[in-house]
Amino acid sequence: MEPFSQVELQLAARNHGMPLEALRYPVTPAGLHYLLTHYDIPAVDPSDFSLEIGGRVARPLALSLDELRTRQAVELAVTMECAGNGRALLSPRPLSQPWISEAVGTASWRGTPLAPLLAEAAPLDDALEVVFGGLDRGFEAGVEQSYERSLTLDEALSDDVLLAYEMNGAPLLPQHGFPLRLVVPGWYGMASVKWLARITVVAEPFAGHQQADAYRLRRDGDDEGTPLTRILPRALMVPPGIPDFPTRERTAVAGPIAIEGRAWSGWAPIATVEISADGGRTWAPAELGDRPTSRWAWRAWRYDWQAQAGEHVLSCRARDEAGKEQPAEAEWNVGGYANNGVQRVPLTVS
Amino acid sequence: MEPFSQVELQLAARNHGMPLEALRYPVTPAGLHYLLTHYDIPAVDPSDFSLEIGGRVARPLALSLDELRTRQAVELAVTMECAGNGRALLSPRPLSQPWISEAVGTASWRGTPLAPLLAEAAPLDDALEVVFGGLDRGFEAGVEQSYERSLTLDEALSDDVLLAYEMNGAPLLPQHGFPLRLVVPGWYGMASVKWLARITVVAEPFAGHQQADAYRLRRDGDDEGTPLTRILPRALMVPPGIPDFPTRERTAVAGPIAIEGRAWSGWAPIATVEISADGGRTWAPAELGDRPTSRWAWRAWRYDWQAQAGEHVLSCRARDEAGKEQPAEAEWNVGGYANNGVQRVPLTVS
Repeated sequence: MEPFSQVELQLAARNHGMPLEALRYPVTPAGLHYLLTHYDIPAVDPSDFSLEIGGRVARPLALSLDELRTRQAVELAVTMECAGNGRALLSPRPLSQPWISEAVGTASWRGTPLAPLLAEAAPLDDALEVVFGGLDRGFEAGVEQSYERSLTLDEALSDDVLLAYEMNGAPLLPQHGFPLRLVVPGWYGMASVKWLARITVVAEPFAGHQQADAYRLRRDGDDEGTPLTRILPRALMVPPGIPDFPTRERTAVAGPIAIEGRAWSGWAPIATVEISADGGRTWAPAELGDRPTSRWAWRAWRYDWQAQAGEHVLSCRARDEAGKEQPAEAEWNVGGYANNGVQRVPLTVS
Repeated sequence: MEPFSQVELQLAARNHGMPLEALRYPVTPAGLHYLLTHYDIPAVDPSDFSLEIGGRVARPLALSLDELRTRQAVELAVTMECAGNGRALLSPRPLSQPWISEAVGTASWRGTPLAPLLAEAAPLDDALEVVFGGLDRGFEAGVEQSYERSLTLDEALSDDVLLAYEMNGAPLLPQHGFPLRLVVPGWYGMASVKWLARITVVAEPFAGHQQADAYRLRRDGDDEGTPLTRILPRALMVPPGIPDFPTRERTAVAGPIAIEGRAWSGWAPIATVEISADGGRTWAPAELGDRPTSRWAWRAWRYDWQAQAGEHVLSCRARDEAGKEQPAEAEWNVGGYANNGVQRVPLTVS
C-alpha cells in the first residue's frame, strides 16, 4: 500500500472497523460494529425530538419517540457494510476513510416499519422519491449540509425498511443514530441515515451531495456513474493463528485448523463460499452454516484445513443465489466504493 | 505529519479512539471509549472461567465469576488513557498505534476490590510484585506471550484497584476484557490488564516484555528508561463548529462560542485549565465544573469565547494540584509515550 496521509489517519482514528475476530459473533456486540460518521456525532435531546414527515403528502405527520414506539414493532438482524469497504486496497487509493476489509457488522435492529407511516402520510400522485435527513451537519464538497439520502417511493415502501430506535436490545448508541435511524436492509450503509429527523416526499429526483455526487461508481471524473445500492457479495474469515504486535503478521501451528467466517450479499442469499490456501490458484467449498433466520443477516461458514508448515495466503470468496460472485480484484472507481475483491490473509505455519 | 505506513493503518483500522465530541458525556457510552488491543480479542466462555491467584502466597485461590460477584462490590468512574496517546504528533514518529489525541474515555467500572482477595491469599514474606496475566496471546519482539503486567505489592494493595466485571452497568464487552479485567485508576491503560485470568505473586521484579521492554520512557535505544505509571495531566476540548468531510477542517460562525471539554491527571486532582485562542501566545482561565464524585474521573471545564472572523488555533492546557502541567510540546521518546503536549484545534470563523 502507498503511504497514508494525515487526512486518512484522522478519519481512521475517529471511525472504526470491526476487528475480524468478531466475525465469531452472529450479532456484533456494541462497539465492535463498524462505524462511519461523515461529520460529528450530534447530541440529541430525545424529549425534544420529533420526526417530521412532509413534502408531497396529503397528511404531514410529526411523531415523537413515544408515538413511534407505540406503533407496530419489528426486530430484524441486518448485516451492514460501508460502501467504502476495501478502499485502502485500491491503487491509486481514493482519498476518504481508508477501510481495509473490516467495515461491516450485524446488528439486531428494533423499530417500526416505514411503509405504514408513509401510507398514512399519503404521498400525492406526483411523489417520486423519499428524502431522509439527519441531524448531523458539516461541509462536503464546499457546501454546508446535513447528511441526506433518498430512496425511490417503491424502495421506501418495501417491507423491511425500518425506523429503528433500538440496536441489540438497547436504545441506539449516540454514534449509531440515537434516538432514531433509518435501516435499509441489503443496502450499503450510506442508505441507513442516522439521527433521522426529516422524511420528505419529493416529485423530482433528489440531487443532494450524497446522492448525486458521492456514493456513485464512476470510472473517471467525467463519468456520471451509477448510484450504489445493494451490497455486493463478500466472505470474510476470522484470521487464523495469533498475531504479532504491531505488524499483525500471523502465525499458526501445523495440523488441523478450522477456518471460520461469514458471508453476505444484499442481492440474494449466499449460495456458496469457497476457500483457497494457495493465494487463489485452487479453491475448495466451505460448509455453510444454517440459513440465518433473517434474510438480511450474514451466513456462517467453515472449512477444515490441514495446515502444513510453510508460508500460505488464505482467501475466501462468496457467490449469491443471483449468480453475483466476488472477483479476485474489483474494478477501480473514483470513489473507491464496493471493492469486494477477495480477502487475502498471509499466514506462517510452523 | 509524515505519511503513515500500512502497519500503522492496520492498527488504526482495528483500534479506535474516542471522537472528541464525546467529551460531552461524563461517562463515555459503549463503543466510544478508546480501545487498544495488542493481539486479538479472545473468546472466553464465562462458565469455564476461573481466576487463579497463586505464586508466593500461603493460600492459592481459584475463583469463578459467581464467586467474585458475591464479594464486596464497588462502582467507580475512572478516566483511562492509552500511554501512546499523542504518538502520531511526534517527529520522528515511533511505529505503533498512531493515536492523535483521542485515546481516552471514562467508564463506570463495577467489580470487587483486589486488596482483600490478595490479603486472603496471604502473600509470603518475600512477596515483591504481583503479575497480572491476560488470556490474549500473540507475538511481540519475536517472543510468543500473553499480555502480562505487574504492580508492586503496595500498588496492588492500594484501595481503588478493582477486578471489574461490569462497565457502564452491563457485563464487560468482549473488547474491554470480558469476563474480567483489572482496573488500576490513575494509571495509563497498559496497567489495566484485560481478560484477566492469572494473578501471580512473585519475589523478583517482573521482567516480561510489557514491563521491561515496552511502556518505558527512553531517550534512545541505549537508555534503560523509566517505567510509565500514572497519567500525566491533559485537557481536551470538543472541537467547536462543524467539520468538513473528509478533511475534518472546522468552521464556525462569529459570535459567542462556549468552548467545553474535560481534563484529568492520574497524579492529583485538576487545579486549573487554561485556554488560548491564538495558538498558545496568551492564555485565559477556563471555569471548572463541579469536582467529580470519583477522584479518578475527568473534570468538566468551560470557556466563553467571543469568536471573531479569521483563522484561529484553539488550545487548552491543564495543571494538577501536584503542580504537574502540560507542556507546549512533550519530550520525544523511543516508544512515543505520554505525549501530553497541548491540543491544537485550527478553526475558521466567518
